[in-house]
Amino acid sequence: MTQYLFDYEIEKTDGMARAGSFSTPHGVIQTPVFAPVGTQATVKSVTPAQLLEIGASLVLANTYHLYLRPGQNLVAEMGGLHNFMNWKRPILTDSGGFQVFSLADNRKIDEDGVDFKSHIDGSLHRFTPEKSIQIQESLGADIIMAFDECAEPHERDYSIDALNRTHRWLERCVRSKQRPDQALFGIVQGGIFPDLRKQSAEFIASQDLPGSAIGGLSVGESKTEMHAMIEVVNQVLPADKPRYLMGVGSPEDLINGIWRGVDIFDCVLPTRLARHHAAFTRTGRINLANAANASDKSPIDESCLCYACQNFSRAYIRHLILAKEMLAATLVSIHNLYFLLALTRQARQAILETRYDAFAQDFLLRWHENASNDQNNIKDQ
Amino acid sequence: MTQYLFDYEIEKTDGMARAGSFSTPHGVIQTPVFAPVGTQATVKSVTPAQLLEIGASLVLANTYHLYLRPGQNLVAEMGGLHNFMNWKRPILTDSGGFQVFSLADNRKIDEDGVDFKSHIDGSLHRFTPEKSIQIQESLGADIIMAFDECAEPHERDYSIDALNRTHRWLERCVRSKQRPDQALFGIVQGGIFPDLRKQSAEFIASQDLPGSAIGGLSVGESKTEMHAMIEVVNQVLPADKPRYLMGVGSPEDLINGIWRGVDIFDCVLPTRLARHHAAFTRTGRINLANAANASDKSPIDESCLCYACQNFSRAYIRHLILAKEMLAATLVSIHNLYFLLALTRQARQAILETRYDAFAQDFLLRWHENASNDQNNIKDQ
Repeated sequence: MTQYLFDYEIEKTDGMARAGSFSTPHGVIQTPVFAPVGTQATVKSVTPAQLLEIGASLVLANTYHLYLRPGQNLVAEMGGLHNFMNWKRPILTDSGGFQVFSLADNRKIDEDGVDFKSHIDGSLHRFTPEKSIQIQESLGADIIMAFDECAEPHERDYSIDALNRTHRWLERCVRSKQRPDQALFGIVQGGIFPDLRKQSAEFIASQDLPGSAIGGLSVGESKTEMHAMIEVVNQVLPADKPRYLMGVGSPEDLINGIWRGVDIFDCVLPTRLARHHAAFTRTGRINLANAANASDKSPIDESCLCYACQNFSRAYIRHLILAKEMLAATLVSIHNLYFLLALTRQARQAILETRYDAFAQDFLLRWHENASNDQNNIKDQ
Repeated sequence: MTQYLFDYEIEKTDGMARAGSFSTPHGVIQTPVFAPVGTQATVKSVTPAQLLEIGASLVLANTYHLYLRPGQNLVAEMGGLHNFMNWKRPILTDSGGFQVFSLADNRKIDEDGVDFKSHIDGSLHRFTPEKSIQIQESLGADIIMAFDECAEPHERDYSIDALNRTHRWLERCVRSKQRPDQALFGIVQGGIFPDLRKQSAEFIASQDLPGSAIGGLSVGESKTEMHAMIEVVNQVLPADKPRYLMGVGSPEDLINGIWRGVDIFDCVLPTRLARHHAAFTRTGRINLANAANASDKSPIDESCLCYACQNFSRAYIRHLILAKEMLAATLVSIHNLYFLLALTRQARQAILETRYDAFAQDFLLRWHENASNDQNNIKDQ
């Protein structure tokens, strides 16, 4: 196998915002793009056919979860993740690092790697940079991530340690990587500290990888801090490579990220909110279980072209929620995913037409009509 | 509104088996047919778009459930059940009788009707034949059912009482019915007693309704008893009207029912089994959670053309089951529904080609290769 090029063509810039095309072995990703999250090799409550209809191109899957169940060897035996989950467009896997630090029990970090207990059955495991790459090569995604350590964003000393370890681990990831048909992205860390973020971005840039990621954000810092960090980092990261802001995905975060030069986003938010009956609309988030929707014939969002909005009323979806019917989660997931994917498609068009500033301002003005949008944290399921 | 004709054209008979076309205001139902059950105005875990792809024509919804939640008046306000649940093909509603007798608490029967408590919140309600028809007229299905009493099938005295009450109630249903665009079917009762079944079928036949139903079967009697009752009843029911065997729907029950002159079936079995990880195959039922499927690349059924079988392995579906992912129920429901609908389509073709006996014998021979098929009872969810 010859090395795949992972060409990234920037079609247009508008301020810091960019419209581009990233070529992968499973097709071209038009950016900016939102990647639905398929934690356990399925985007919760939707089928791949529905994802295609929504217009998804890139889907994310979690290395930590798939390593524990069903195991990367089974996935490889089944022809890799694309075949296993029947998603024939591009896939990105994370490194497992974030889940080891957020989900697993009894983790112990040393220079070489991390010991942890499975959150499923308490069994003992160890991840190293080499192990993470080996698992991701077995899974076979188009984009794979370096094994990193996500520190508490406000602790400077811990952030410095984590950042330096993340850099040393990246060099080991680069050395151990074998498959030529996967793009390895390095991850910028550094908490909320501009100097650390700059230093980390410079190191990531120096590795000349096919893409860069910004990690350790949307983990408890303020929106102002997040925006400042994106700006610092994107002044340093290579302009000719895609930039991926990890785990970020509310509508206003997408708009603000694109404004600051981010190309790729992922988040569980749209599907998780859906299971909690919350839906995106142009004028903010609504809770479909509210009595106000009991006899509302209108769709979730009048302007939306998704399957749920074209065919079902708020009253019907509220009935499904009260009756505890699975179709509720399916319909609201389809809507929320469509909303974010349509948003990135509209943002792309605005960039191509050099009117992104006006587009973004207009979106944010309408979005903030509804004050409840500022509470984005929904308890984990 | 002029009276809709509900024309039933018999295209071909083959022994007692029949291939026909039943015309309703929402389209023609080609028989024999299996109707997926959408208890609460949704066939559990599948979308209407998926139901269309499966080839469903008639869908059943439950009057008892929809009366309690969201209420027939809301459904009427939303434009009726077809609009509410976005199923634009034919719909059948039952009368609520069966659920009042099987689900509700504290029921008290008198000549006029039944008092009962809601299984949801314990609130007090009363159904009468007139009330059942009024609710079903608000819901607006194409086929509506007479309010009947389903007795314990082996108790002769109770069966006689229930049968006579059911007949008197049918006359009240006929008198109170107003909408000309709904077909009212009467229901034959009589437990496992041939003389009572014959008497009941004669009474139903005398009412000259657009279709007939056989109730009170698949409720605890043996298969032999069920088959004998179908034979007795179908010798009496009008040959030029569709015959609906209520609540029956395992593959072998469909084959045996069609053999004895039944045209319409419904059952929660395919979707309920799916939520318990059980799938139909040509050689019998399998449990997809079994370890034997852990690395099985083959689909649920090699010969099946459904979305699940065309795109996913048993290994992947087993992974979804172990990971408690909703997609498992969706994929297995799609498969089980497709299996039964394909079976009725194949049966229809066999009748049209005067080879139903051979088709049925061949199916049953292969089906019974797997002994576990004889346990059809899955605990209610």
